[in-house]
Amino acid sequence: MSKAAPLPPGATIGILGGGQLGRLLSQAAASLGFRTHILCPDEKSPAGEVASDWTRADYTDAAAVKTFVSSVDVVTYEFENVPVACADLVIEAGGLLRPGKRALEVAQDRLTEKRFCKDLGIETAPFMPVANAEAASFALNVTGIPAIMKTRRLGYDGKGQQVIHEESEAATAWRSLQGAPGIMEGFVPFEREISVILARSELGVVTYDSPENVHKDGILRVSSVPGNINTDIQAEAKEVATRIAEELDYIGVLAVEFFVEKSGLLRVNEMAPRVHNSGHWTSDACYMGQFEAHIRAICGWPFGSTARHSDARMENLIGEEAANWSAFAAQDKARLTLYGKKQMRPGRKMGHVTYLSDRKDS
Amino acid sequence: MSKAAPLPPGATIGILGGGQLGRLLSQAAASLGFRTHILCPDEKSPAGEVASDWTRADYTDAAAVKTFVSSVDVVTYEFENVPVACADLVIEAGGLLRPGKRALEVAQDRLTEKRFCKDLGIETAPFMPVANAEAASFALNVTGIPAIMKTRRLGYDGKGQQVIHEESEAATAWRSLQGAPGIMEGFVPFEREISVILARSELGVVTYDSPENVHKDGILRVSSVPGNINTDIQAEAKEVATRIAEELDYIGVLAVEFFVEKSGLLRVNEMAPRVHNSGHWTSDACYMGQFEAHIRAICGWPFGSTARHSDARMENLIGEEAANWSAFAAQDKARLTLYGKKQMRPGRKMGHVTYLSDRKDS
Repeated sequence: MSKAAPLPPGATIGILGGGQLGRLLSQAAASLGFRTHILCPDEKSPAGEVASDWTRADYTDAAAVKTFVSSVDVVTYEFENVPVACADLVIEAGGLLRPGKRALEVAQDRLTEKRFCKDLGIETAPFMPVANAEAASFALNVTGIPAIMKTRRLGYDGKGQQVIHEESEAATAWRSLQGAPGIMEGFVPFEREISVILARSELGVVTYDSPENVHKDGILRVSSVPGNINTDIQAEAKEVATRIAEELDYIGVLAVEFFVEKSGLLRVNEMAPRVHNSGHWTSDACYMGQFEAHIRAICGWPFGSTARHSDARMENLIGEEAANWSAFAAQDKARLTLYGKKQMRPGRKMGHVTYLSDRKDS
Repeated sequence: MSKAAPLPPGATIGILGGGQLGRLLSQAAASLGFRTHILCPDEKSPAGEVASDWTRADYTDAAAVKTFVSSVDVVTYEFENVPVACADLVIEAGGLLRPGKRALEVAQDRLTEKRFCKDLGIETAPFMPVANAEAASFALNVTGIPAIMKTRRLGYDGKGQQVIHEESEAATAWRSLQGAPGIMEGFVPFEREISVILARSELGVVTYDSPENVHKDGILRVSSVPGNINTDIQAEAKEVATRIAEELDYIGVLAVEFFVEKSGLLRVNEMAPRVHNSGHWTSDACYMGQFEAHIRAICGWPFGSTARHSDARMENLIGEEAANWSAFAAQDKARLTLYGKKQMRPGRKMGHVTYLSDRKDS
């Protein structure tokens, strides 16, 4: 891997996707003197509001992607469901895509992702691909019951999932996928959930202290740092995440979510080839936040410190919860971030609040 | 003073001026879910790059200002030399201008500013208005020698100033003003320079710990917190700044720069009716930074905490110094902010770096 010259301030970073992660990436890029250019299909987007430029186009609009690529110095993405065909268009147009195409391919298919982990000797939930109703029943022999019938692609925040408590429910669950390729996953009897947020560039790998995460209805609610995570488990989780990043020759921020069993066994839940909701606290509690780390990585800059100046508890504001912005804003030592979304729909991530406190460990 | 309902997230904040302070205000506003709209006469501006909207127009273009006002929910300014005529246009168009017009009138004329302080019983450098060469010599009887001949208006970062070491230089110094109204100011034998950054809204006043500031060639170089400032002086400086804010019925962030004499005597050097360079460290070291405090104040939001989680030393990057961005980026626990300016001209503020360390006082 040759080390390219870092992109100087004033360069333009192209971002595929216009959601809150693109918005927060844009803001971090601007703080380092970069321009940003968003490409997304929506007329209005949280990221477009703060970016220097934006293009409204479908991700697979070849002409639009080509023009976009010619206007930027590096291309990144803010969500893992950017079509691989879009990555191909970026590369064909001579664009520097960071992270690369392979991270997209692995992360946007649950089956590919789990097989990728298995090949690296990394534990996941037991799983089996499901192509028809009969296979759905058979898969329960591998996964055990309860299990979760999921689409292989395009699910997030608990969407496209059916929990199975009895074998008789398997066929119905399969049919609910409406013909989409499926995967049956076993339940992991986890004691807690943690994640590793790391950044990798040609200059090396840096990691943050892992947050302990609490989900509800498939949506992240709370990330706390420090979490209740012992030293060995922390070290192992970082080692596993780093192994994944190295295998992908990854450039940028990578998030890996883990289940921790009572025995201490770690199983990868899923990976996200991007900045991650469970890392939002880093922008409030660390010397260099995850968004800045991603920008530094893809621009070939040296990393700053991932250390914490404060302990943190991040809570997501979902749907109507954001209507209480005034109360959150009044909290002492709380840092409120809102994403500029107009409509408070149920389950929609509207913002987050990070409660800071003096660092107790170390 | 009646308390208006706070502006909700999604509202648009109009900012007069497109420099780095407008840029950092825009970013803080976006973090709270607001949109921003910049009005400035430049084709490209640091603030325009990160704002939701921008209008290129002269500040006294009545039609443009009217359209601008109709598109925003509140109007603020990022520099004190916005023409008062522009403030009038905003008000005529029904705009809510925060801070108000009087703060502009006082802060953009050194003579008015010093008389304003005098009327409040607040010490400044000795001063005398100068309308001709003879008056320039006479003024030295009041100010003593050395003294500084300044234009009353439109000077900043040491521009438009002549130091006088002998009486014979007075007439020449006056002529260097080329007919602009002048003011002669005495030298203050200060031991150190400090500033108070405060925010005032209809809900009250909050202040930050004062930085100790070092200037060179009339330009701020370093602000350190905590400074070498004893408790009594800190309290008095905050009291004086608060008195100024109250007298102006001020809404927003106000900065007051002080000279501290060896005896402990405080003299106001100047005030800035805006966020201030000597407060940049607050965004890196405090729970709520000055830019966010300004946005909260003008939008009627409750304030967060102005407390520090870290000690800080902010250094400005002037002109070619910013070419070393890579070295600054690599410093441990340093937070780098660049303003997105294309050209590194001598004396031009390109960015700043804040070195953080564990808080030593409590």
